[in-house]
Amino acid sequence: MSNSNAAQLRAALSGVLDEAGFIDGDEAGARYCEDFSGGRGEPVAVLRPKTPAEVAAVMKILHALNQPVVIQGGMTGLVGACVPQPGEAVMSLERLNRIEEIDAVGCTMVVQAGVCLESVHEAAAASGLLFPVDIGSRGSCQIGGMIATNAGGNRVLRYGMMRNAVLGLEAVLADGTVISRMGKVLKDNAGYDLKHLFIGSEGTLGVVTRAVLSLQPLPASRRTALVSVNGFGEVIALLQTCRRRLGASLTSFEVMWRDYYDTVTQELKIGKPAFARPGSHLIVVETMGAQLDDDESALTDVLGDFLEASDGADAIIACSLAEADALWALREASGEAANAIAPWVSFDVSLPIADMERWVIDIHAQLRALGTVRMQTYGHLGDGNLHLVAGGTPDDAGFAARVSPCVHRSVGALGGSVSGEHGIGLSKKPYLRDSRSADEVALMAALKKTLDPKSLLNRGRVVEIPA
Amino acid sequence: MSNSNAAQLRAALSGVLDEAGFIDGDEAGARYCEDFSGGRGEPVAVLRPKTPAEVAAVMKILHALNQPVVIQGGMTGLVGACVPQPGEAVMSLERLNRIEEIDAVGCTMVVQAGVCLESVHEAAAASGLLFPVDIGSRGSCQIGGMIATNAGGNRVLRYGMMRNAVLGLEAVLADGTVISRMGKVLKDNAGYDLKHLFIGSEGTLGVVTRAVLSLQPLPASRRTALVSVNGFGEVIALLQTCRRRLGASLTSFEVMWRDYYDTVTQELKIGKPAFARPGSHLIVVETMGAQLDDDESALTDVLGDFLEASDGADAIIACSLAEADALWALREASGEAANAIAPWVSFDVSLPIADMERWVIDIHAQLRALGTVRMQTYGHLGDGNLHLVAGGTPDDAGFAARVSPCVHRSVGALGGSVSGEHGIGLSKKPYLRDSRSADEVALMAALKKTLDPKSLLNRGRVVEIPA
Repeated sequence: MSNSNAAQLRAALSGVLDEAGFIDGDEAGARYCEDFSGGRGEPVAVLRPKTPAEVAAVMKILHALNQPVVIQGGMTGLVGACVPQPGEAVMSLERLNRIEEIDAVGCTMVVQAGVCLESVHEAAAASGLLFPVDIGSRGSCQIGGMIATNAGGNRVLRYGMMRNAVLGLEAVLADGTVISRMGKVLKDNAGYDLKHLFIGSEGTLGVVTRAVLSLQPLPASRRTALVSVNGFGEVIALLQTCRRRLGASLTSFEVMWRDYYDTVTQELKIGKPAFARPGSHLIVVETMGAQLDDDESALTDVLGDFLEASDGADAIIACSLAEADALWALREASGEAANAIAPWVSFDVSLPIADMERWVIDIHAQLRALGTVRMQTYGHLGDGNLHLVAGGTPDDAGFAARVSPCVHRSVGALGGSVSGEHGIGLSKKPYLRDSRSADEVALMAALKKTLDPKSLLNRGRVVEIPA
Repeated sequence: MSNSNAAQLRAALSGVLDEAGFIDGDEAGARYCEDFSGGRGEPVAVLRPKTPAEVAAVMKILHALNQPVVIQGGMTGLVGACVPQPGEAVMSLERLNRIEEIDAVGCTMVVQAGVCLESVHEAAAASGLLFPVDIGSRGSCQIGGMIATNAGGNRVLRYGMMRNAVLGLEAVLADGTVISRMGKVLKDNAGYDLKHLFIGSEGTLGVVTRAVLSLQPLPASRRTALVSVNGFGEVIALLQTCRRRLGASLTSFEVMWRDYYDTVTQELKIGKPAFARPGSHLIVVETMGAQLDDDESALTDVLGDFLEASDGADAIIACSLAEADALWALREASGEAANAIAPWVSFDVSLPIADMERWVIDIHAQLRALGTVRMQTYGHLGDGNLHLVAGGTPDDAGFAARVSPCVHRSVGALGGSVSGEHGIGLSKKPYLRDSRSADEVALMAALKKTLDPKSLLNRGRVVEIPA
């Protein structure tokens, strides 16, 4: 396997890419070198095809040259998957930014990979429809990257992950073959559903170029509340009540432990003091429904009954979208909150809800014993997905290497996931085996070898091909 | 590759299977020889392991013997996938019939492959929960088969296909390797999501042995209506109104054309006459929601407004579960209806809803020109999935061979699916290429070769490994 230098690549690709389509590695801006993981690398060159056909043509040439390439979207990933590694070219899909079609009858949208999530939200709303997947980086992240990483977010409880919002998909294999099934229907059992190979495999099996997204009716109502409860038992009681009585209108159930909530409200001073005496857990409950008046009274009734039966719980229901946004701001301040306890290591784990209380107590104790001085705990509890941030001391060089195995091993022991939504990329790779068996990892490697035998696409991410 | 005879197989498996676990081929009852497709075959032997570990042990031995095997569940399939082919052993999973666990907090159920759908429904309901996937063969079909075929049904609009209801999965590969990820959480991005390889691949890539199913809150309300409208435009108008105003409580939107409805009501005399003058299309609308009173009034309001604005539409809302069942009986009489116009050929196609009206008109005309004397048209319109039954004349031997390519080619030309929910199996294999490209089929074959290089599992179903 020999890699190419920038001049060779430019020459080889000159018949495919236009002037704006090729950037020499030494002129590549930070946009192509860094993602949200904090990692940084130097690409051989940056390739910026402007159509799906150009992506296929580029891949065919790279394949002939044995040139490894890392695929980039909005660069909001947290596991270092998109940081160029030595010898890699970058292929950015940012110019594949067309929304090709919206079908209001079929509730579908055809998009190219480089379209930003916020643009999808806006285009759907303009047609009276909702694209349900929403994550904090909505202004930067791109649909292709969200598909490749099976993005999650705050409404998974109701609408599922990105995987559930994709009806059709087009992907380019490492050798330039186009695998296209841009289906627009909910039901399609004509042969293997190949799109699921590409969704969530972090660009290691193919380059997502286009997709058919599934849209939902635009809800008439959106109601947001912040609930304060005492004890994890009450968290579960509230979750079960909300599920049963709010049904499918329950879209979010986001829990903040006090260690996180106090950092946000007292140190970062985000939000006005909501509760004089906040309980042990603070919960953002959100509903979206089709019936404005009924939905409003439903949330009020459910929370009213809950408060009456509980000991010391309290709740605020937002009276406007601005108030709702202010409640969400508490939950979405996680980036600033982590920085307030730097140096930090963050975790994104899933485990059965029934095991969560004990796990949090145990892992807090274990992390303290390993030199953690502060912690933050919060997450998508309704989805079984928790984020945990451990803060060490500035002089503790071995901190991350000590705490990470401890957290991941403990989650694995419960049958949980070392990555609920962020993926494996490069930084979680040492922990994949905590969640997955040797036979599973061997099958992943066999798939990688079948689809990308030269290991050119996002090489070394998620899984390695055995020599 | 050499196959074994029954005596050799019995000897080889004697250390694994008990007395009830092995039946000689010539003693195998119809249960193991026929499925709902009408096909019939003779197995070398019937293997009936009683645990997932026995399935793995059996597969390991069959692999060493190069013995092909077809995996059987409830035998309700319609595409001949489970009919034993010459030289094949049968492995029936009917003894893997344990519901292992229900977690009412996490809303999960751990089941073995041979559990019947109806048992899952009952066990979920006993815990105050709903398993949302429902199909007509609920009393016979088994969870393993439903996963292998990604079963659909009447509530896909709201809850998705079987794929969406599976959180964790255990499957045995052709060589006996166990790929187990019995995860219980909605969010798990730790490496490739291998379960999607096995869901919907019709037993060709692995044997599903156990699964973690995702349960939903048991709805408080279930409301069913039958609506009569004039013209396909009104069907679409009603669908859009229901989607927008009923939101997630809309669980079914099933449409019957008059050719189907008249057979059921006038010839089969099923149901009492609902409408003095039925319109061109009859629609079963069903809602399920969390708020009994609100949901009742919502459906009444929506249909009331729709009737007022429409020309000649009419509606009946069921006042009891018995009345609801009577409305559903019209839609679920499809088996008897087809037999009323025998000899028949049935189709299970998906296509964009926006293309449906023209397609139905065109295909009716084409089928008539090809000797079709009667037709029935109905289906899961909200999912883009239609069933079409073409009836020929008794003496027309070439009827099926003439009409099938015509229907499948026309659907493929619209980007639709030659199989919305029934799968490909053996009988739809000649038409797979109408929906899928040569590159897609080549990738399917490459996956088959990677996971089952000897092609022992459900050999020849869906896709062939090229020589």
